[in-house]
Amino acid sequence: MSRIAYVNGRFLPHSHAEVHVEDRGYQFADGVYEVVLVQNGVMVDEMPHLDRLDRSLDELRIAHPMSRGALRSVMRELVRLNRIRNGLVYMQVTRGVAKRDHPFPKNAKPSIVLTAKRISMPSQETVENGVKVITIRDIRWERCDIKSVSLLPNILGKQEARENGAFEAWQVDADGNVTEGTSSNAWIVTQDGELVTRPATNDILNGITRLSILKLAERQGLKYVERAFSVDEAKKAREAFASSATAFVTPVTQIDDVVIGNGKAGTLSRGLRDSYMEYAAGEGATA
Amino acid sequence: MSRIAYVNGRFLPHSHAEVHVEDRGYQFADGVYEVVLVQNGVMVDEMPHLDRLDRSLDELRIAHPMSRGALRSVMRELVRLNRIRNGLVYMQVTRGVAKRDHPFPKNAKPSIVLTAKRISMPSQETVENGVKVITIRDIRWERCDIKSVSLLPNILGKQEARENGAFEAWQVDADGNVTEGTSSNAWIVTQDGELVTRPATNDILNGITRLSILKLAERQGLKYVERAFSVDEAKKAREAFASSATAFVTPVTQIDDVVIGNGKAGTLSRGLRDSYMEYAAGEGATA
Repeated sequence: MSRIAYVNGRFLPHSHAEVHVEDRGYQFADGVYEVVLVQNGVMVDEMPHLDRLDRSLDELRIAHPMSRGALRSVMRELVRLNRIRNGLVYMQVTRGVAKRDHPFPKNAKPSIVLTAKRISMPSQETVENGVKVITIRDIRWERCDIKSVSLLPNILGKQEARENGAFEAWQVDADGNVTEGTSSNAWIVTQDGELVTRPATNDILNGITRLSILKLAERQGLKYVERAFSVDEAKKAREAFASSATAFVTPVTQIDDVVIGNGKAGTLSRGLRDSYMEYAAGEGATA
Repeated sequence: MSRIAYVNGRFLPHSHAEVHVEDRGYQFADGVYEVVLVQNGVMVDEMPHLDRLDRSLDELRIAHPMSRGALRSVMRELVRLNRIRNGLVYMQVTRGVAKRDHPFPKNAKPSIVLTAKRISMPSQETVENGVKVITIRDIRWERCDIKSVSLLPNILGKQEARENGAFEAWQVDADGNVTEGTSSNAWIVTQDGELVTRPATNDILNGITRLSILKLAERQGLKYVERAFSVDEAKKAREAFASSATAFVTPVTQIDDVVIGNGKAGTLSRGLRDSYMEYAAGEGATA
């Protein structure tokens, strides 16, 4: 079955899904995006993702391309056309097509593109043994809270991770504190059993999965705090993990050359992963 | 006459110039660009622009899409097809089309797009009275030396300039020093008559026009230095100007609310503008 994409009002074969070269997303990275997980045929944390899309658009003063109801219909039709049971929906909105010039164009209509694909769940091996992360300097701009397509530093960091046999690169600010991964949020569990993740400021993207995990931690009465943590502290942590819409809770068992805990996924990380998976299949799911 | 663009091997009507939605330029800002001035039908500073394109590609480890000779042929054909006497050629190279995933794709072929358009020279009024710039915080990433399409902070800055009745926004680093404009380099002439511009590090794009101006200053025996200068120093300067491939030397006669010099283009700025125009029409031109 060939994939179907949605481009500015039309469902098209994926191979024909094109945008104009003067779409400002292409020439200026003038756009935003969201990735929504589809699990057992339903969207996970759909509303928070759409809320964040709206926020990103508003921060950049890009007009909303369609109503939320219409967008949700397109998402569902795309999932149906691509026969996706477990996968993800990618959506991107840009400021639209205009003669190339830096300032916002006067009458551009925002562009909207959606694609969908199947993904497989992380292997049991990954969940049990965890993954390695490396630490790199955070060289990004100062508005990482906006989920923009201005992702060049992120891909360079991810590539560096891959070349070092790692799943992810944790970016480190000038103070030696971890900001976040290149496509995931960063968490540790201290030797005192406290769950720690960086607060959501302009320095990081406020992950939807991050927010769900905080909610679950709160409910379960876990000890947690939102504060910056250093690379040194992370390397001495009892547990560590990464969170994202597609990686859920992924145990981290090595940071650079340092093994975390006993080198296996930690108890709290695994518990949160299970809780999150349960949440994603139940309360967090929207048909 | 309708415009013609070049997209991955084909000359097409501009309206049909499209790229795939999974071109990494669209989804990750994973690409670079150059803008070359065409004056009296010939390219200005063509070789330095193509050298910089190669450097940007190499820094990002994007393969070169074609030989320099082939690229120069495409540029000339595009100028001819669009009947451009005074205008510019825009070229963009991205890492190519690949299934969306952060790390570099294994077998992607770089995408190359060229467009061309006519432009008019700045008015005599602009040249004589100069323009206003505002100062804004530099929020960009740490590799501004790469001419990437990751331009979101630049367009936000330029928009802010426009909304404040200004031609350009000069970005200011954490030390209070001007880095550069959002699409031009920044220069001042001190009360002692010394020409000052920031050295080319990772903090700024090393403008081709900037380099040509430095060369002209050297030849003319002007007193000049490459060093950082503060906003305060700029506001007390005798003259100020901006340089870019499309704006050449544009006198700056107002920075925020402060009038520079007597509010008219300074002597040295005008002299350099004339020298540059002469250079662009002669030595800097390649048929």
